Amino acid sequence: MARETLVDSRQEILRTAARLFQQRGYDATSMNDVAAALKLSKGGLYHHFQSKDEILFEIMNHAMEITQERVLAPVRGIVGAEERLRALIRLHIEVVLSPRDREITVMLHENHPLPPALRKRINSRKKEYIHFVESLIADVQKEVQKELQKDPQRARQTRGAVSPRAAAFALLGMINWIYQWYKPEGDLQTHNLVPQFTELVLGGILA
Amino acid sequence: MARETLVDSRQEILRTAARLFQQRGYDATSMNDVAAALKLSKGGLYHHFQSKDEILFEIMNHAMEITQERVLAPVRGIVGAEERLRALIRLHIEVVLSPRDREITVMLHENHPLPPALRKRINSRKKEYIHFVESLIADVQKEVQKELQKDPQRARQTRGAVSPRAAAFALLGMINWIYQWYKPEGDLQTHNLVPQFTELVLGGILA
Repeated sequence: MARETLVDSRQEILRTAARLFQQRGYDATSMNDVAAALKLSKGGLYHHFQSKDEILFEIMNHAMEITQERVLAPVRGIVGAEERLRALIRLHIEVVLSPRDREITVMLHENHPLPPALRKRINSRKKEYIHFVESLIADVQKEVQKELQKDPQRARQTRGAVSPRAAAFALLGMINWIYQWYKPEGDLQTHNLVPQFTELVLGGILA
Repeated sequence: MARETLVDSRQEILRTAARLFQQRGYDATSMNDVAAALKLSKGGLYHHFQSKDEILFEIMNHAMEITQERVLAPVRGIVGAEERLRALIRLHIEVVLSPRDREITVMLHENHPLPPALRKRINSRKKEYIHFVESLIADVQKEVQKELQKDPQRARQTRGAVSPRAAAFALLGMINWIYQWYKPEGDLQTHNLVPQFTELVLGGILA
């Protein structure tokens, strides 16, 4: 019983469950496995979450809250579209590579069918994020057009070959795919990945 | 019994299994479910595949063969690095969006733990593909450098801000992520996605 008090937060349950789901697969992991990994009784676990679907939903929801707090909120405060986009790319990559939150955020890509009402709530938060990125990219392209009017000799140009929507999906794909190839001991880490992905995206959307 | 002869190929089994794995999850799908969906007896299914792991491996292996035949083979024959990269982007997107093969290729991203020997074979084919893309991007950047030496007035430039490796991961992320947002009834389809992703990547790697 005393051991149970060590599990001081729902977040620890979510992180542990996320790790197990990734290691063993969602279906192959039982509520018993999650309780055992946390040294909780099954009753102790059910006190917090009534079902595995609820845990998966809360993991995904928590991942969207992390994105909200650590990417969207700081980005909204920045003046200048290009600076906002640069910050978004950096902060999103930092969240994706954060050792603490990696296990949580990667679960956003778990395709296990959730009950429709829960799936809908997650999807609508994902859509909000995509729309935010899309309109930010449109703002960057407009900003560059304005530069061009002020000083046609020196300004960069955008030919408008890439729509904000296609660019938003490309950007999210690049970043959300990182978990598929990232190695903690590899050459590509946050400090050199952020500037390269940033230049690639900016070069790309001004194509 | 006669019905079983209708299942004329291992490929049909693989496609059906891939569809079930995506709809219900890999773990939640049994060999019985696969046999039933194909109107095969369980013995009929085991005649072709001895285990679910073998089916998953063969799906992934088939996906890599599709990539080999329909992307790599045609691309290798093309003269000119930029044209090769443009063809690779187009052909890879066509494979990913092909209604016939979508169910197969998407399974490459299934993270279910395969037996280590099988996992190793898939991973080494994936690595080959990544290295091919990486060295192709390096060739494009060199080609552009040469243009620049020939005619500094008119040529495009590359500042070398994006390494071939980071660019290769970005490109594969963009394309392999498509299945997460693609809708058959949506605005973004092969005909307008290919040119946009192509310009984005070319603009990006010459950043």
